[in-house]
Amino acid sequence: MTRQRLVELIRSRASYLCVGLDTDAEKIPAFLHSQFPDPLWEFNRRIIDATRPYCVAYKPNLAFYEALGASGWELFEKTVRYIGPDHFVIADAKRGDIGNTSRLYAKAFFEQLPCDAVTVAPYMGEDSVAPFLGFPGKWVILLALTSNPGSADFQFAPQSDGLPLYRKVLRRAMTWAGPDELMFVVGATHPEDLRRIREEAPEYFLLVPGVGAQGGDLKALSDAGLSGECGLLVNASRSILYANNGPGFAEAAAAEAQALQLEMKKILEGK
Amino acid sequence: MTRQRLVELIRSRASYLCVGLDTDAEKIPAFLHSQFPDPLWEFNRRIIDATRPYCVAYKPNLAFYEALGASGWELFEKTVRYIGPDHFVIADAKRGDIGNTSRLYAKAFFEQLPCDAVTVAPYMGEDSVAPFLGFPGKWVILLALTSNPGSADFQFAPQSDGLPLYRKVLRRAMTWAGPDELMFVVGATHPEDLRRIREEAPEYFLLVPGVGAQGGDLKALSDAGLSGECGLLVNASRSILYANNGPGFAEAAAAEAQALQLEMKKILEGK
Repeated sequence: MTRQRLVELIRSRASYLCVGLDTDAEKIPAFLHSQFPDPLWEFNRRIIDATRPYCVAYKPNLAFYEALGASGWELFEKTVRYIGPDHFVIADAKRGDIGNTSRLYAKAFFEQLPCDAVTVAPYMGEDSVAPFLGFPGKWVILLALTSNPGSADFQFAPQSDGLPLYRKVLRRAMTWAGPDELMFVVGATHPEDLRRIREEAPEYFLLVPGVGAQGGDLKALSDAGLSGECGLLVNASRSILYANNGPGFAEAAAAEAQALQLEMKKILEGK
Repeated sequence: MTRQRLVELIRSRASYLCVGLDTDAEKIPAFLHSQFPDPLWEFNRRIIDATRPYCVAYKPNLAFYEALGASGWELFEKTVRYIGPDHFVIADAKRGDIGNTSRLYAKAFFEQLPCDAVTVAPYMGEDSVAPFLGFPGKWVILLALTSNPGSADFQFAPQSDGLPLYRKVLRRAMTWAGPDELMFVVGATHPEDLRRIREEAPEYFLLVPGVGAQGGDLKALSDAGLSGECGLLVNASRSILYANNGPGFAEAAAAEAQALQLEMKKILEGK
């Protein structure tokens, strides 16, 4: 998906919501297990159908699928194909390997599957990221500042110039690719850093996880991170997926997604 | 596999060789494609049978398997099960995610599959690594200093105390886990740094990729990295797997592996 198309979707739906499809067999409603031959697929299908109007992106985290073995990979494929071309599809894989190996991952996600973006870890440097670049309409979303407590261990580590590592990652990566094929992950749990990143990278989209179950605040992060053409994708996973544990789970998910979308609409109008 | 058992295998085979199972449909001998229904499996099976006596570990890189979709995941499962208990099995996955997600990866590799170790990327910090720890006989192999050119981008970046980032990763990680469940990846292309890491982490095993196709020198890296009980696993992938492209590929792979093993034997005896 091109940047222009993504911005159009955000405008037309008045939403910059990304729904994280972290589908967990132990958390989905019990009745799905007893009534359907493929309960996880049934769950994903209904969640997608229910939340489509309120979001612009879906982000399945590969860990939840790989934990299921080969059948999980099939579920992942089926899910990303089902999402279709009107939503931005992010394979949350956090990959990164030496060049020839990263290239294989890129082909898997971009050519064999209809993913629009892959999350990539920066530790191995440019030649681990570059193989994901140069696919028209496809994106790298590089980890810059993550939402978890462990982000303090290395991402905030001061470099010899006094800046934290994540800002070095940001600056270096912006020399590798422009804002039409590169985004950054910035956790919602760090709104002040989000503001600094927005100043330093005014044109780039930021994928912001950590709203909902992880405690990030939508208003605060939007104030800090919105750009002229929005420039944010805000992800919520558990708070939407597991809003309700009964037969009405998809309606409850839709209501959660809609509540976030309405808040986003207000924020976008207030800009 | 316990540390004690790994050290025993190294002694009894006079080898610290790890064979990287980076199985690529475009590189395996053409006759396998025309004569076998599952040519990649046939390739892996024969490579494993031919190289068993000369190595102590196998390291399939997940990218090569995931590039094939669900069938690749089946190939990966079949392969790690086929290796059996007399070799140390490393899932080269370079994973790392927020805690609950890393936990799923850990269960997939350690409980559903008989892998002994998983490679993990450090960028997200302690709570992305900790979920892989505490499985008896299972190991985290943390990226410290990788063999690729991009290692210069961040791993060598000087911190506020003047040390490169990879040494901060090393020091911090040693406070998370001891040498019975934690190893480090140190590329063969950095022998001087390998020596420094060995001094700083005398008890820890180091997994050293980059020998063979990537140009690392076995003698130099062994001089720099060997500890009292060996403490090294040296990986070679392409130079063994694709030593010959005809019907004799497995014998050629065995000869390459044996040549490395004999050099290792000499090095171990000379200590």
